[in-house]
Amino acid sequence: MNDIVNRRICFAQRPSGQPTADVFAIAVNEVALPSDGQILCRNLLVSVDPYLRLKMHDRESYTPPLEIGKQIPGGTIAQVVSSRHDDWKAGDLVAIPGGWQNYAVVPGKSATRVDTERAPLEAWLGPLGMTGYTAYAGLLSMGHPKAGETIIVSAAAGAVGSLAGQIGKALGCRVVGIAGSDTKCKTVVETFGFDACIDYRSSTFEDDLRAASPDGYDIYFDNVGGQISFSVQKQMKLFGRIIVCGLISQYSGQNDLDPKSLDEYMRWILVRRLAIRGFIVSDLARNHPEFHETVAGWLKNGQVRLETTLYYGFDQIIPAFLAMLEGRNTGKSIIRIAEAA
Amino acid sequence: MNDIVNRRICFAQRPSGQPTADVFAIAVNEVALPSDGQILCRNLLVSVDPYLRLKMHDRESYTPPLEIGKQIPGGTIAQVVSSRHDDWKAGDLVAIPGGWQNYAVVPGKSATRVDTERAPLEAWLGPLGMTGYTAYAGLLSMGHPKAGETIIVSAAAGAVGSLAGQIGKALGCRVVGIAGSDTKCKTVVETFGFDACIDYRSSTFEDDLRAASPDGYDIYFDNVGGQISFSVQKQMKLFGRIIVCGLISQYSGQNDLDPKSLDEYMRWILVRRLAIRGFIVSDLARNHPEFHETVAGWLKNGQVRLETTLYYGFDQIIPAFLAMLEGRNTGKSIIRIAEAA
Repeated sequence: MNDIVNRRICFAQRPSGQPTADVFAIAVNEVALPSDGQILCRNLLVSVDPYLRLKMHDRESYTPPLEIGKQIPGGTIAQVVSSRHDDWKAGDLVAIPGGWQNYAVVPGKSATRVDTERAPLEAWLGPLGMTGYTAYAGLLSMGHPKAGETIIVSAAAGAVGSLAGQIGKALGCRVVGIAGSDTKCKTVVETFGFDACIDYRSSTFEDDLRAASPDGYDIYFDNVGGQISFSVQKQMKLFGRIIVCGLISQYSGQNDLDPKSLDEYMRWILVRRLAIRGFIVSDLARNHPEFHETVAGWLKNGQVRLETTLYYGFDQIIPAFLAMLEGRNTGKSIIRIAEAA
Repeated sequence: MNDIVNRRICFAQRPSGQPTADVFAIAVNEVALPSDGQILCRNLLVSVDPYLRLKMHDRESYTPPLEIGKQIPGGTIAQVVSSRHDDWKAGDLVAIPGGWQNYAVVPGKSATRVDTERAPLEAWLGPLGMTGYTAYAGLLSMGHPKAGETIIVSAAAGAVGSLAGQIGKALGCRVVGIAGSDTKCKTVVETFGFDACIDYRSSTFEDDLRAASPDGYDIYFDNVGGQISFSVQKQMKLFGRIIVCGLISQYSGQNDLDPKSLDEYMRWILVRRLAIRGFIVSDLARNHPEFHETVAGWLKNGQVRLETTLYYGFDQIIPAFLAMLEGRNTGKSIIRIAEAA
């Protein structure tokens, strides 16, 4: 493989605040051959995910901080070029932790088979991939939704949020979204089928929250944290469940909470007897063996829509990531960097 | 009964900050006869509890605010004077919601039998009463303690805290307390058998927390909220459980949290994947039918100690309550206002 060149995107410097393109650098190397048990894959679709922003801080988080100079990680859909693992042969389509690069060498056991008969390639990064499992397992394992309950979802136009809401609807719940513009709110209702969606930039946000469900909310699927979540918490019903999936409001470090907020936050936990759970998707691995079957069924019957913001070309990986952090995506952000052979 | 005079303590005005005696007023009435299904009881022991302070605010809480002029509620141990309920006869000893007064007329079905063969009278307001059930059911239902885990308890010298810690020890856990002075910390370790106790007034509080359990804490039984709880939260282990039982630090409205605290608090929920649950004891009614049996056994074999701060006389009810709010009690605060006939 010494004649195949691999471009890879590396971490050049820690951002302060909202990242820009100079956080990254592009390196080039020759593609290595797989060792025993490994597979060499060509990345076709690259995923960019909000949790990466968290890894850019040099402080304790749920994954180790990114080291300067290191390859940026990320889920990919790829095609096997050369295999030294019994389960795989050249040409197979796989979901792997392939990273932001053209070619990846990974352990064969880290790969999951992609079945395009069942759902299009993109779906295996979205509803049937880590994104889908985050929404599905998070909502079910921590939220315990019952038909007729009301769920509120922040970052409702985003990859995980739009799925969490659609899954809630498929389970017979009433679902309200929170998003960052009128246009997004329209998409959340019209495309993703939420019952209502509220613009958190509105000056009447707290009133709108109340109006959308005057009796309050049973479940809050939280992707943002900060002031938005503080406002939602006060609208939770007795014995409400808050699922802390992401905190994108604070990933870049800006916020403007009132000093009394934490006291108030603790107070509502007790007054409303809330259950608040933080989780990351890997905590819930294998909790829901029915996941692929169930969500593939919903995709087929239209209860869950495959909605992506698609970019084309390796050069679009960084812009796609930056756009997602600024909330300029709808559904899952995916970059197609090659076609299957 | 027209010749028996009942003194009762009423709510005279809402306090701002730490309450003083003029929050209360004493009223006198003639004792009423019980109607059908009711019992007339003479209060022997009166309980004063921190949750009362919460009821003095005129705002939504987990119980309705106290109304000005109304009788102060509270658990009591009493003796039946006259019964119009089939389960009870004159002379029976009962635990009832008798309030801060000499005599109470209550529904017979609200009374619980007190068995002095099994444990002394005081125990039925403490370990075998609402206080004990709060500690027991809260720790078991929300904390799911496993032998070998480390539990940290705030207000560890208080009624609920001291029991939560002793129950943790009885279940094979390592238990660390938090209390408000050296003397209290000594009591928590020497009397209640905690493995360690930390003074939250110390300037090295956060370091002391870390030193007492360098690997962190599995369970936090929280009675105080505020800055103390914020410090503890950062020391929780992955998948730690926080049981929010009380928030005495904010009952009187003073606090001094940093504006960034809520963001940080939300961050640690996600990073450490914490489960935080607010509860009040009535949520857990009948969850643990084995409660009396189990705790009476621990009282008998000394694994749980009956430790009270006892006051004598009706006039001591208000001072006992104020002393408890200032943390000047150890274990359960009880006022003996009469002897059994």
